[in-house]
Amino acid sequence: MSSSVVPVAVVGAAGRMGATTCAAVEEADGLELVARIDAGDDVGAAVRDSGALVAVDFTVPAVTEANVHAILDAGAHAVVGTTGWDEASRSRVVEHLDRLNAGREDGLGVLIAPNFGLSAVLAMTFAAKAARYFESAEVVELHHPNKVDAPSGTARHTAAAIAAARADAGLAPSPDATESGWEARGADVDGVRVHAVRLRGLVAHEEILFGNVGEQLTIRQDSFDRASFMPGVLLAVREVVGRPGLTVGLEHVLDLT
Amino acid sequence: MSSSVVPVAVVGAAGRMGATTCAAVEEADGLELVARIDAGDDVGAAVRDSGALVAVDFTVPAVTEANVHAILDAGAHAVVGTTGWDEASRSRVVEHLDRLNAGREDGLGVLIAPNFGLSAVLAMTFAAKAARYFESAEVVELHHPNKVDAPSGTARHTAAAIAAARADAGLAPSPDATESGWEARGADVDGVRVHAVRLRGLVAHEEILFGNVGEQLTIRQDSFDRASFMPGVLLAVREVVGRPGLTVGLEHVLDLT
Amino acid sequence: MSSSVVPVAVVGAAGRMGATTCAAVEEADGLELVARIDAGDDVGAAVRDSGALVAVDFTVPAVTEANVHAILDAGAHAVVGTTGWDEASRSRVVEHLDRLNAGREDGLGVLIAPNFGLSAVLAMTFAAKAARYFESAEVVELHHPNKVDAPSGTARHTAAAIAAARADAGLAPSPDATESGWEARGADVDGVRVHAVRLRGLVAHEEILFGNVGEQLTIRQDSFDRASFMPGVLLAVREVVGRPGLTVGLEHVLDLT
Amino acid sequence: MSSSVVPVAVVGAAGRMGATTCAAVEEADGLELVARIDAGDDVGAAVRDSGALVAVDFTVPAVTEANVHAILDAGAHAVVGTTGWDEASRSRVVEHLDRLNAGREDGLGVLIAPNFGLSAVLAMTFAAKAARYFESAEVVELHHPNKVDAPSGTARHTAAAIAAARADAGLAPSPDATESGWEARGADVDGVRVHAVRLRGLVAHEEILFGNVGEQLTIRQDSFDRASFMPGVLLAVREVVGRPGLTVGLEHVLDLT
Repeated sequence: MSSSVVPVAVVGAAGRMGATTCAAVEEADGLELVARIDAGDDVGAAVRDSGALVAVDFTVPAVTEANVHAILDAGAHAVVGTTGWDEASRSRVVEHLDRLNAGREDGLGVLIAPNFGLSAVLAMTFAAKAARYFESAEVVELHHPNKVDAPSGTARHTAAAIAAARADAGLAPSPDATESGWEARGADVDGVRVHAVRLRGLVAHEEILFGNVGEQLTIRQDSFDRASFMPGVLLAVREVVGRPGLTVGLEHVLDLT
Repeated sequence: MSSSVVPVAVVGAAGRMGATTCAAVEEADGLELVARIDAGDDVGAAVRDSGALVAVDFTVPAVTEANVHAILDAGAHAVVGTTGWDEASRSRVVEHLDRLNAGREDGLGVLIAPNFGLSAVLAMTFAAKAARYFESAEVVELHHPNKVDAPSGTARHTAAAIAAARADAGLAPSPDATESGWEARGADVDGVRVHAVRLRGLVAHEEILFGNVGEQLTIRQDSFDRASFMPGVLLAVREVVGRPGLTVGLEHVLDLT
Repeated sequence: MSSSVVPVAVVGAAGRMGATTCAAVEEADGLELVARIDAGDDVGAAVRDSGALVAVDFTVPAVTEANVHAILDAGAHAVVGTTGWDEASRSRVVEHLDRLNAGREDGLGVLIAPNFGLSAVLAMTFAAKAARYFESAEVVELHHPNKVDAPSGTARHTAAAIAAARADAGLAPSPDATESGWEARGADVDGVRVHAVRLRGLVAHEEILFGNVGEQLTIRQDSFDRASFMPGVLLAVREVVGRPGLTVGLEHVLDLT
Repeated sequence: MSSSVVPVAVVGAAGRMGATTCAAVEEADGLELVARIDAGDDVGAAVRDSGALVAVDFTVPAVTEANVHAILDAGAHAVVGTTGWDEASRSRVVEHLDRLNAGREDGLGVLIAPNFGLSAVLAMTFAAKAARYFESAEVVELHHPNKVDAPSGTARHTAAAIAAARADAGLAPSPDATESGWEARGADVDGVRVHAVRLRGLVAHEEILFGNVGEQLTIRQDSFDRASFMPGVLLAVREVVGRPGLTVGLEHVLDLT
């Protein structure tokens, strides 16, 4: 193995996202798939034996935290796409990283991303940056009709980021003279209205609308296929190596300067 | 006055829509503005004295029905853009027309249109026609934030027409697995979800979304200015002359064959 | 076989569209797949032996006309999705049908459809109907970047239909003050500007834009997957039986009244 | 005048943009309109006599450079919305500023902005940032049909910024298999395709499309009215005071971190 190739292990390799990740790593320049790890395997031993520099976890909420600690103890960086991380579980990873990285310049990193879709992450990031410059802001998310929750986590997250940016800038609430028919006005997420459309044929889409007198800015992202997450996963694998400590959100490894 | 020019009176000529109509009639080929009638005027006498063949009513719900009866008694056709017409008031106009038109081949006509926007009327009409061919349908309306009711009358009307077409075709309800977060799923109009967005800078807009496996049809209309209603008003003025009896809805005078 | 079930043969059953059609027929209520016919088979004999009432042809331009004549001689109706039909080949089918159907009330039918996507056909049909009511009209089609021709056949067809409707209504050309930069103004199809966007991640999409003073109407259709053509193919199979003679275009079997 | 209120002069006060600016300054918190200056006036003397801290220039290309030098000599900062600045004219302003500001910590500033629309500037800025993350990128601009040039300056600028970002990131050209019909593929601006739509009823709009396998990001901005430029003009007036030297582009005074 040449020194410029990063050996990568995938935990949850038999799952849909895991399998797609294995395929993407195998095709990627500069990355080499060295282990496919699944339920029943000893994650720590498997990572260590494979010589992986980075391990990607696409498993389930019940095991992802334990996997990350095992990956770190095995000396590898971790990229995590599994959901279910709360404040407490993140704190325990930070403590573990602090312990391992103490006195090291080039310590281990963990990157947890709720969303690896570049278009979704960019849309959210741009929406947060634009928010302070518009009088009105609303979010419409559109998904396939098998989705059980509304609005989507991405839309909630986007609306919360918009609300926080508006608050920071001292903006008043978006103007709204509605007196009747509030049920048509969507969910209220920190004061930002979020609408959920469910339509056969769609996959996962988000549209963020900003308005001032005489102008509108619309940011829309469409995810048609889970293949669309792979550029983000590969970027995370490449970037986690030089980024010791915990990073939450793919937006922090994007170069948006 | 040449026989090919239609003399037109405008009732409510000092109001915003009335004034815009006066200007549009004055500029239109084949039409001549012969009377500007307002509150305080005797509508019947004014229409009769002007020699108007068609009178356009843009007044207020409280007086529009009386105006129409006066216009008919003065021997003119009526085009009505004022809202507030219910089943009973429409029936009284039908009776009046039946009485006046009995035994005449080329009787008087009344055209009541809740919306003179061609793009809005076409969008609604096409949506109703398309509805039977799609598994899913939802409506999003977007307006300026000073609007007090939600969803808009146009969106309600569109959703009801879609629902009726789906019922006629024996379609099942649009699929929807939502278990939580119903407040983000919009208002339920006869089983069709309707979402209302309020944004500074917008005027009046409607987007109708249809979905099947692997495909989507979207019909959108934007009204930026009340000037956009004038082509529809002029079309109604021209068409009402050859159309005895009551017609409700501009779509009935459009040639969509 | 019950009298209410239509036996269907698929010619070109091993191709992508043919195979998708076979699967769709097998799952459809009221239809039964009775033959999968491919290159090398005697189409006429295979259709006759199968007892098919309708045969669907998804083959190649070089053989589709011969296939249709063989299907008709075998006593079956034909639904054709293969491209490459010109005026002359259509005339020969009409002559054949006239000969076969002479003196019969319930003769054979052939339905040739360049596009079975309901959203695409509806978009085109609505665009043609709307065209006479707007001062400006343009078409934007968006496809995957592997497409070799521009603009798409669907977009050309749509623009030509818009142009014809405008001409019928006596409309002047869409206003356009462009003095420099014509290369950005798209292709001219009978006076209607057509723009072609090529973007990784897209499949086949079309957006038709109409504008008047103060208003806009937009009709957009998205095809994400060839599965989206199946509702149109099944509709054609069901409708061709009661429709003797040649029909070109799925729009003629849609109920748009 | 309280020390916290900024006195503002408007040069070209009788023009459309100038008059709108005067009205906006008069209504703005913290700003005071102290001079309306027009053709025939001595700009330098008028600015000096008014005590303006900032002068806004909305004039014509032939006089804007001379106006800026006069404003600087009168001791005021300048905000410039007039077009027609080339490399040489900008250099002369830089030299003038260097001379005036030498040895001063809090020197004079000039802000030249080709576009004061926040939505337009944000769309361009976000597009440039997103560009490196997508395989495909195209630009569609849509304007009223009285526009004489195509594509718009904003669209050219956006495409050039996308092209530069793609080059920096080492991206290959956007994939494009087009073999015929290039006239539908838009103008080529540094390798990025730009399409220009002209439609009655529109004002000024831009849509930037990015695509990867399985995903799309769309950034769209709509300018309906020149009132939409005022938030950007007022922001420029407030920000130029603390920003010595020449700044080109409103994006540099936006807080997008």
